[in-house]
Amino acid sequence: MNQKKVGKQTYLFSRPLPILSSAAVVGKKEGDGPLGNYFDEIVLDPLYGERSWELGESKMVRRAMDLALAQINLAYGDLDIMFGGDLLNQIIAANFAARHVPVPFFGLFGACSTFSEALALAGIALDGDFVSQVLVTASSHYQTAERQFRYPTELGVQRKPTAHWTVTGAVATIVGSSGSGVALTGITVGQVIDMGIKDVNDMGSAMAPAAVDTIQQHLQDTGRQPSYYDVIATGDLGSLGKGLAQDMLAEAGYDVENNYTDCGVLIFNPDQDTHAGGSGCACSAAVFSGYFYPRLMNGNLQRMLLVSTGALLSPTSYQQGESIPAIAHAVAIEKV
Amino acid sequence: MNQKKVGKQTYLFSRPLPILSSAAVVGKKEGDGPLGNYFDEIVLDPLYGERSWELGESKMVRRAMDLALAQINLAYGDLDIMFGGDLLNQIIAANFAARHVPVPFFGLFGACSTFSEALALAGIALDGDFVSQVLVTASSHYQTAERQFRYPTELGVQRKPTAHWTVTGAVATIVGSSGSGVALTGITVGQVIDMGIKDVNDMGSAMAPAAVDTIQQHLQDTGRQPSYYDVIATGDLGSLGKGLAQDMLAEAGYDVENNYTDCGVLIFNPDQDTHAGGSGCACSAAVFSGYFYPRLMNGNLQRMLLVSTGALLSPTSYQQGESIPAIAHAVAIEKV
Repeated sequence: MNQKKVGKQTYLFSRPLPILSSAAVVGKKEGDGPLGNYFDEIVLDPLYGERSWELGESKMVRRAMDLALAQINLAYGDLDIMFGGDLLNQIIAANFAARHVPVPFFGLFGACSTFSEALALAGIALDGDFVSQVLVTASSHYQTAERQFRYPTELGVQRKPTAHWTVTGAVATIVGSSGSGVALTGITVGQVIDMGIKDVNDMGSAMAPAAVDTIQQHLQDTGRQPSYYDVIATGDLGSLGKGLAQDMLAEAGYDVENNYTDCGVLIFNPDQDTHAGGSGCACSAAVFSGYFYPRLMNGNLQRMLLVSTGALLSPTSYQQGESIPAIAHAVAIEKV
Repeated sequence: MNQKKVGKQTYLFSRPLPILSSAAVVGKKEGDGPLGNYFDEIVLDPLYGERSWELGESKMVRRAMDLALAQINLAYGDLDIMFGGDLLNQIIAANFAARHVPVPFFGLFGACSTFSEALALAGIALDGDFVSQVLVTASSHYQTAERQFRYPTELGVQRKPTAHWTVTGAVATIVGSSGSGVALTGITVGQVIDMGIKDVNDMGSAMAPAAVDTIQQHLQDTGRQPSYYDVIATGDLGSLGKGLAQDMLAEAGYDVENNYTDCGVLIFNPDQDTHAGGSGCACSAAVFSGYFYPRLMNGNLQRMLLVSTGALLSPTSYQQGESIPAIAHAVAIEKV
């Protein structure tokens, strides 16, 4: 038993599990950002033609799924299982996308760590020889997230410098059970870490310790040095959290200065008024799908560790004065 | 590949995966119900000594976890992974329980189907030889659910006859990777089914088609007759949904009159003013843990199909006029 477990929280797959296709549909602001050219589609209308932002977000999920399938000429009936989630209460963006397709569905909630969580579970199901093709989705939306977690955007409440800007977008990724290309090779499943931080306008500081915990555990479990990876990318720590994570890793004796980055820092330009950077399930998902995945495919990168990070708070919990638990799951993705 | 897939949505495990222990902590009303004597602990105070119902629910999760571990003299460090979820926004009952324990955590949202969903994923991880011991949790709470999904209970809003009563309780179940006893033998992963029902006070009717879809698919995929199981138990269709499900199965040619029941019907007495019956993640979880699991252990039952059912709505979605998508996952549990 447990042949695949390495150390305490890490599992190495018995074979590489290739990413067969991946599509990212994003909003206008993301399209205007430094990675704008890399995304599959840019949706200018935050409603995406629907009558609510929530339905618009869900439609983006469906569009990303359609695109990911079209890239490899598959139909929904070819998919064994779908893992999906988002930030919304009761993950309605994912649920409402899944109701349109004949694919057995596992709903996840990992906040902004959802994409890594879904990839990890897809890997487990694939490597265990349960399934051949798994669909993974993750989405977030500035307007739906703001009004759910903070204030209706119509109020125009001023945002703190440490605040993040929720990425509008949806990503669908299809993972297969064997073959070459860019593949999942292992995962480190994160623990919930709560350092007592309570400022909901500073998610980066709340999530950085979880990211560091998972990265450190991954390196300890595998005996790898950070330099094993061309890139270690956290999900959405933003500029503040990224600095914290880098300092904490340095203190622990890990030099990541040359290969560590954060998707929340990459997705927006500082002059886009997004303060600490991007966040949301779609942040690490879209940056991976649009930016890193093609660079792994074309050989510019050989190995990356994607560490999507999630703040597991709810408006109820922070209004009750609770601190913000956080989690990070790591997925090793390599060109094979 | 796919050696374990049978038919379209069903997976049979390569070996039985034994349930090593299971504990159910429930509230006073559940303790007063017909199954009251079967639960491990009854908590009379809905706050459970905490300062909010949400923290009380989360504490119930921790208590159930402690009890499930104590039954088999394990410590948290012996658990490889935890799968958990609940009904609350951002699944804070599960997240806030997980932050207290050093166990890698996958958060799930499947509404009231969470227990089956978590067992299914635990089975996949165990059967794939990733892990040896997996913790599964599910919880719900009358007061936290009412104020989140409907009205603050202090308002005293009259409930419709078709409404359900959310079960207060938490369940923790530990599943192992080999051995005899009562074991998971297979799963059928549900699809999201939306028949256009919009009445949030009639979840049974919204969920019955999803339950029927999954049960039918399970029988088709496996070639089994309903009589293969001593009990087929849906999660929380309640009296109305149970009748609907039974009629729909009969129409499809499946006679389940003698072995079909619903956990939402079993958990309360009609004179407890719970109308259509119990609901919530803890409903099917507690009825399984407290009532069915011991009967499988002592041989009174040999085989059961647990079909937890979830209504995937959110207050946002129904306030926007959306219908209620539903899902059901089936887990075959047998004495081996």
